[in-house]
Amino acid sequence: MSSATGRLLIVHGPNLNMLGTREPGIYGSESLEDINALCHRAAADLGYDLDTVQSNHEGALVDAIQAARGTADGIVINPAAYTHTSVAIADALRATALPVVEVHLSNVHAREAFRSHSYVSPVAEAVIAGAGSTGYRFAIEHLAAYLSS
Amino acid sequence: MSSATGRLLIVHGPNLNMLGTREPGIYGSESLEDINALCHRAAADLGYDLDTVQSNHEGALVDAIQAARGTADGIVINPAAYTHTSVAIADALRATALPVVEVHLSNVHAREAFRSHSYVSPVAEAVIAGAGSTGYRFAIEHLAAYLSS
Amino acid sequence: MSSATGRLLIVHGPNLNMLGTREPGIYGSESLEDINALCHRAAADLGYDLDTVQSNHEGALVDAIQAARGTADGIVINPAAYTHTSVAIADALRATALPVVEVHLSNVHAREAFRSHSYVSPVAEAVIAGAGSTGYRFAIEHLAAYLSS
Amino acid sequence: MSSATGRLLIVHGPNLNMLGTREPGIYGSESLEDINALCHRAAADLGYDLDTVQSNHEGALVDAIQAARGTADGIVINPAAYTHTSVAIADALRATALPVVEVHLSNVHAREAFRSHSYVSPVAEAVIAGAGSTGYRFAIEHLAAYLSS
Amino acid sequence: MSSATGRLLIVHGPNLNMLGTREPGIYGSESLEDINALCHRAAADLGYDLDTVQSNHEGALVDAIQAARGTADGIVINPAAYTHTSVAIADALRATALPVVEVHLSNVHAREAFRSHSYVSPVAEAVIAGAGSTGYRFAIEHLAAYLSS
Amino acid sequence: MSSATGRLLIVHGPNLNMLGTREPGIYGSESLEDINALCHRAAADLGYDLDTVQSNHEGALVDAIQAARGTADGIVINPAAYTHTSVAIADALRATALPVVEVHLSNVHAREAFRSHSYVSPVAEAVIAGAGSTGYRFAIEHLAAYLSS
Amino acid sequence: MSSATGRLLIVHGPNLNMLGTREPGIYGSESLEDINALCHRAAADLGYDLDTVQSNHEGALVDAIQAARGTADGIVINPAAYTHTSVAIADALRATALPVVEVHLSNVHAREAFRSHSYVSPVAEAVIAGAGSTGYRFAIEHLAAYLSS
Amino acid sequence: MSSATGRLLIVHGPNLNMLGTREPGIYGSESLEDINALCHRAAADLGYDLDTVQSNHEGALVDAIQAARGTADGIVINPAAYTHTSVAIADALRATALPVVEVHLSNVHAREAFRSHSYVSPVAEAVIAGAGSTGYRFAIEHLAAYLSS
Amino acid sequence: MSSATGRLLIVHGPNLNMLGTREPGIYGSESLEDINALCHRAAADLGYDLDTVQSNHEGALVDAIQAARGTADGIVINPAAYTHTSVAIADALRATALPVVEVHLSNVHAREAFRSHSYVSPVAEAVIAGAGSTGYRFAIEHLAAYLSS
Amino acid sequence: MSSATGRLLIVHGPNLNMLGTREPGIYGSESLEDINALCHRAAADLGYDLDTVQSNHEGALVDAIQAARGTADGIVINPAAYTHTSVAIADALRATALPVVEVHLSNVHAREAFRSHSYVSPVAEAVIAGAGSTGYRFAIEHLAAYLSS
Amino acid sequence: MSSATGRLLIVHGPNLNMLGTREPGIYGSESLEDINALCHRAAADLGYDLDTVQSNHEGALVDAIQAARGTADGIVINPAAYTHTSVAIADALRATALPVVEVHLSNVHAREAFRSHSYVSPVAEAVIAGAGSTGYRFAIEHLAAYLSS
Amino acid sequence: MSSATGRLLIVHGPNLNMLGTREPGIYGSESLEDINALCHRAAADLGYDLDTVQSNHEGALVDAIQAARGTADGIVINPAAYTHTSVAIADALRATALPVVEVHLSNVHAREAFRSHSYVSPVAEAVIAGAGSTGYRFAIEHLAAYLSS
Repeated sequence: MSSATGRLLIVHGPNLNMLGTREPGIYGSESLEDINALCHRAAADLGYDLDTVQSNHEGALVDAIQAARGTADGIVINPAAYTHTSVAIADALRATALPVVEVHLSNVHAREAFRSHSYVSPVAEAVIAGAGSTGYRFAIEHLAAYLSS
Repeated sequence: MSSATGRLLIVHGPNLNMLGTREPGIYGSESLEDINALCHRAAADLGYDLDTVQSNHEGALVDAIQAARGTADGIVINPAAYTHTSVAIADALRATALPVVEVHLSNVHAREAFRSHSYVSPVAEAVIAGAGSTGYRFAIEHLAAYLSS
Repeated sequence: MSSATGRLLIVHGPNLNMLGTREPGIYGSESLEDINALCHRAAADLGYDLDTVQSNHEGALVDAIQAARGTADGIVINPAAYTHTSVAIADALRATALPVVEVHLSNVHAREAFRSHSYVSPVAEAVIAGAGSTGYRFAIEHLAAYLSS
Repeated sequence: MSSATGRLLIVHGPNLNMLGTREPGIYGSESLEDINALCHRAAADLGYDLDTVQSNHEGALVDAIQAARGTADGIVINPAAYTHTSVAIADALRATALPVVEVHLSNVHAREAFRSHSYVSPVAEAVIAGAGSTGYRFAIEHLAAYLSS
Repeated sequence: MSSATGRLLIVHGPNLNMLGTREPGIYGSESLEDINALCHRAAADLGYDLDTVQSNHEGALVDAIQAARGTADGIVINPAAYTHTSVAIADALRATALPVVEVHLSNVHAREAFRSHSYVSPVAEAVIAGAGSTGYRFAIEHLAAYLSS
Repeated sequence: MSSATGRLLIVHGPNLNMLGTREPGIYGSESLEDINALCHRAAADLGYDLDTVQSNHEGALVDAIQAARGTADGIVINPAAYTHTSVAIADALRATALPVVEVHLSNVHAREAFRSHSYVSPVAEAVIAGAGSTGYRFAIEHLAAYLSS
Repeated sequence: MSSATGRLLIVHGPNLNMLGTREPGIYGSESLEDINALCHRAAADLGYDLDTVQSNHEGALVDAIQAARGTADGIVINPAAYTHTSVAIADALRATALPVVEVHLSNVHAREAFRSHSYVSPVAEAVIAGAGSTGYRFAIEHLAAYLSS
Repeated sequence: MSSATGRLLIVHGPNLNMLGTREPGIYGSESLEDINALCHRAAADLGYDLDTVQSNHEGALVDAIQAARGTADGIVINPAAYTHTSVAIADALRATALPVVEVHLSNVHAREAFRSHSYVSPVAEAVIAGAGSTGYRFAIEHLAAYLSS
Repeated sequence: MSSATGRLLIVHGPNLNMLGTREPGIYGSESLEDINALCHRAAADLGYDLDTVQSNHEGALVDAIQAARGTADGIVINPAAYTHTSVAIADALRATALPVVEVHLSNVHAREAFRSHSYVSPVAEAVIAGAGSTGYRFAIEHLAAYLSS
Repeated sequence: MSSATGRLLIVHGPNLNMLGTREPGIYGSESLEDINALCHRAAADLGYDLDTVQSNHEGALVDAIQAARGTADGIVINPAAYTHTSVAIADALRATALPVVEVHLSNVHAREAFRSHSYVSPVAEAVIAGAGSTGYRFAIEHLAAYLSS
Repeated sequence: MSSATGRLLIVHGPNLNMLGTREPGIYGSESLEDINALCHRAAADLGYDLDTVQSNHEGALVDAIQAARGTADGIVINPAAYTHTSVAIADALRATALPVVEVHLSNVHAREAFRSHSYVSPVAEAVIAGAGSTGYRFAIEHLAAYLSS
Repeated sequence: MSSATGRLLIVHGPNLNMLGTREPGIYGSESLEDINALCHRAAADLGYDLDTVQSNHEGALVDAIQAARGTADGIVINPAAYTHTSVAIADALRATALPVVEVHLSNVHAREAFRSHSYVSPVAEAVIAGAGSTGYRFAIEHLAAYLSS
């Protein structure tokens, strides 16, 4: 039985399973496993358990987000390509009524114009873009602070 | 062996499995099971058999719609978030060549601007928004009348 | 003296007096009298008295809507062409503070682009388009349910 | 009893009753009576009877256009300000199923940007702008030729 | 026979006859009679006679504005909903060639986006929004000053 | 030596040399020679000499328009496809400082959206669209009236 | 020690120090000193003390607005060119939480299109444009009425 | 063990499994099996092995594209409805760093406006639309030529 | 006398005469003569005679297209820069009523935004972009298949 | 003489000097001094010296940013209102050629539409919004990591 | 045999042959011959030979620009009306790979909105507008300086 | 006492004090002192005295421009970043009623889209972009010629 302060869900969107090999000039050389390990350390430091999920399927991401209702206390999400096209993910986040932090590895605001619009941002407490994998740690710290306030 | 007049398919889009718990101020307190029961009663009253499907996966909804070709006589669809983002669902409906009624629980025209555009509406015979779960009954009645005319 | 549960107002916008003769491929073959008779039956079934008004004059429609304040319990409106151009009608509906259902005989979302914008929809509880004259019955049923809830 | 070839309706929109006094630099110095007289002569020369109507009321113009169904063979309309704002008039013209010619005294395409959009033009056979009162004669001649072809 | 300095016309657009009962949070608790009385006092203080007109009919407002040509020296107009949709009223004001002040009870610039566009403003000397009924007094004072300069 | 009242130039834009064979459903069955003959008769009736030019070359049309300065008293132009794309032709018309009437055989306002914008219209006295070949006669009559006023 | 009812701040934006010499056809012949004197009289009549500030520096205007918090009871601002470009001034006004009236000497709605958008208007109680220097008096009267209500 | 020159992946998007039955007027009468057979012949002629995949699931298409990295030398993709809505598929193609040819059976540029925008095209070497099933053969030939150059 | 199956016209737009020297990184190193030779071989293989034309003059291209009516059975066109600006060429193609395939050497969809709009595409059977000179061969093969079907 | 690893500049834009008193529901209850103290601690922990500057003057912010060239190793900037309107600040950041992190206290993406556009973001390495004052600490940590990599 | 430093081409677009007679209020009273003489003097002073060309034909201008490749060292172009509509001219300039200076006699940025967009400017080293004929001298001086650097 | 022909003001906008060090690839290697020296020589050659001002403060630039009224005969301005965002500077230039030439070192029309809009251009006689520091000399020569004409 866990004595953790709480539980967080890390949601990784499409193509993030390719990290480390995919366009390292934009996305860096760390793998998704590296990032998940980093997240586990950051959460553990703050007394939180952590679940992680990655999928290339919008519907699977919606399923995972819905499942967080009642099992998690907050969500960190990097919606990747679905940031710009998925109302379903944003609506799922709304449906959980959990605090959300949106993370992007690269600075989406400095890339193609379509990447500067996010359906998720209006649902998020905070948005962190361009800080690489450290952005996940920032997001976890912010969620923990938010939940303890 | 069924002696029904025909068969209808009810398609529920993403997050509708959360009904009853999800933002009840917007979507009401009925569960999806309640709505499906209502649909079964409405269809039975008109002599129709009914299949229902819900998925958070755009592709699963496309699969289900395609499968209606040859097995169903009409489709009632609440595409939910995919209303605004899915050309694939609209194209699947076109491919079935069946009559379609589009339903929304809430009045989408009175919410965020992006919710007032529907890829599905140009394929539908009728669009009913804001009538809550009763909108499904209206849709079934309209399909039945359409099919008998 | 009426023992009715309440009273509803049906408002028909411009050119609806031409129904039955006007572009029957789009608007059907029923006359406005047919539709009003249908509405009277639907309302009577639910214990409601009914007033109907049709005008080609935006101002006359505003007058009629204003007059409903204090005399009617809900409004069903097919604003027809004024749907897309009349802020005055929408403001009159706001001024009555009555529940409103917007009805269109044809599926306006599948026609010219300008017909997909409605000034009235943000004021309405529900919007029903493309269900032909049956849409009025649906609207009356929805208003009755709304008023009894 | 008339032995005329047919009957035309001339519809003048809002503020055209002010002609002769209103901004003569833009609209010329002829009065509406002058223009109607010109129209009567042009129609008579071609064997047509003529009715004329002017109103500042959109609804009254819709009424008059509807009344032309069954009594007139064609319509010449200068919708004036309603050119740019009235779907109701365009729908009324559609409902009559009569041939329509749209006339503007001034060249609307060389004025404020909003004057270059017409809801009526898609319903018209021909559009004549900037030819002053002679535009009405051209419109009558075109209608007569259209009707005899 | 009047010895007044001149005569002003106050034009009230649609739904302003509902003042006092209509959405008092936006439009205040004064009735139209209260405002007309206020206008009469303000005009009398400056030596002006006053006519007032209210209509829900765009055409009736156009008629009244046209009639001001030759009988009034200036116009105060609250076009209400027609502010945003009526070219006919703006053209009627142009046709009178009288000085015009546009008044809005509420601050239209802080409401829905469509309320920030006015067809009337380009024809007006001054535009006063959000000053409640006092805006009418300001408008009368401004017109009087304008006419005496 | 001509004793004509004056001289007009008729300018036909690209593809009008195909008239009679090209999409007769849109452009009619008359050939360009038929139209030029019609123009000559109309001009002669009014005492005007006439030159006609057709080219598929924007530059050749500009050359011809420039040459009208000093030799012609007015220009009738059907810019055809160049209506929507040629600033050069509009600037050439400006450079001649002659009165211009723009003609279109079909009602361009009822076709593809890009055909409703004309670079030429702001330079024209009048614009006549949809009156078929008769539109040229109307244009000539209007120019003659304009020149004699 | 003042026994005034309260204190108002008048804020004049860029180039208003040039009044009297700058484009008098648009801005009138009064100097800023004339307007400030007018404001002092209007405020004194209503029992208010008055501070005035003019600057061409957006930051200096922000400084002055911030300083009003705790020292003034309301603000009259003519943001001039910064109306259309300064979020900082609008945010400063929000930060003071004081009632604001926005004034423009000319009717900005009848000039270049970019002058019809104001970042300040959503923060203001009222907006007065085109009433010349009298607009300041109206603004002061409205603020005084607002504060005493 | 294959002695093929290389291996290509053919990716078919949503609803293409309906080919032959779905709107044959637009998409032709060949089934997807016919097209795959055609592709196998074309690839074999050029010495290439071929894998084909079809899915209605955006995520499954992303999975398949990712899997091509390291196993295939080039990709032919008909993204169908996802052409216009999927950033995820375009990002997956980027992540593979393989040459891509985009194919559409119909001429998407001549259909609804939303079908003329492709998220995939900026990632593709070539785009072939409207050549029916032959477009796949062209794509395979182009990829083979590209790979051998 | 030719015993060919038919005759095709290849139309090359502006600046394509510079091929081989012009921006080879975008357009490749083949000359126009190389491409024409390739086209002759491809046509001959299919039993077709071939005419080719290149011009920098929009009008000359229109002339050549018109001349194809009655002499050619199909047209392959690379409109180059005129793709984006010429309604005249598109109208000329419409006037011939011949099947058309549009070719671009580079992938226009991956370059400046203005290059993604084509006036020609709605008139074409197929559009092939980015396949280099081979795109012409694909186009010829597609036309031949189209003509034989 | 400092033995610090380096030096960072924290730039606070307009109205941030009002923190703690200004709209605490949006911006929190900490004062700017609190935030600067937090920044000093965060920088010291990482071995960095820190300068802070706040101004309501766009020009003063440009001056301060320019001065960082040669004296600082990185910049954290909360441009506040100037985020959306200042090209000058973005150009100054470009001119320093230093790494930049952009911070916003509130989630600007969930507020008025104009707040979702930033001139600064394309110049920044990372953008952090909605994390309150902790966002500054995240920014400092990211800059330090960036500089040591 | 020339001992000149190099050779420049001056390209004049449509209607510039009308200079001196055409709208002198906008374009000045100098003829094109005057401007060419001015250009010859300016070039000679700097040791350059000069060719000049004017045409109303877009294609002729493209021809002339292409011909400059290999014969000229730089191009001064006043594309006149083709500035706003010709991709072909811009592409021809790209194809020459020569330095280009764009000149306009009038300040195009202060005229109709469509004149503020130039297809040529992205290809030019410098753009000079509104300096009248002297703009050509500036352009020649700039090209000479560019070429000698 | 000066015997100069007149006096010019050179206004340099934000970040131009960084010239020589700031992005030399775009802005060149000359310092602002170099440019001012160049300007002094150019002015002296033409008999003009010269004042120069540079500021990063929009307000300071407005102050300096205002001060030119009565002391200078013309203004050369490089508004730099304020070109695109400052109505205040454009209004100050209008208020001086002096002739203005706008200069940009780089070709702003070939950079980010937002740099192609200038609030200053409609107020300027001429606009010179991309000619580097020589653009200032051209501007001074043009002003001198303008003033002597």
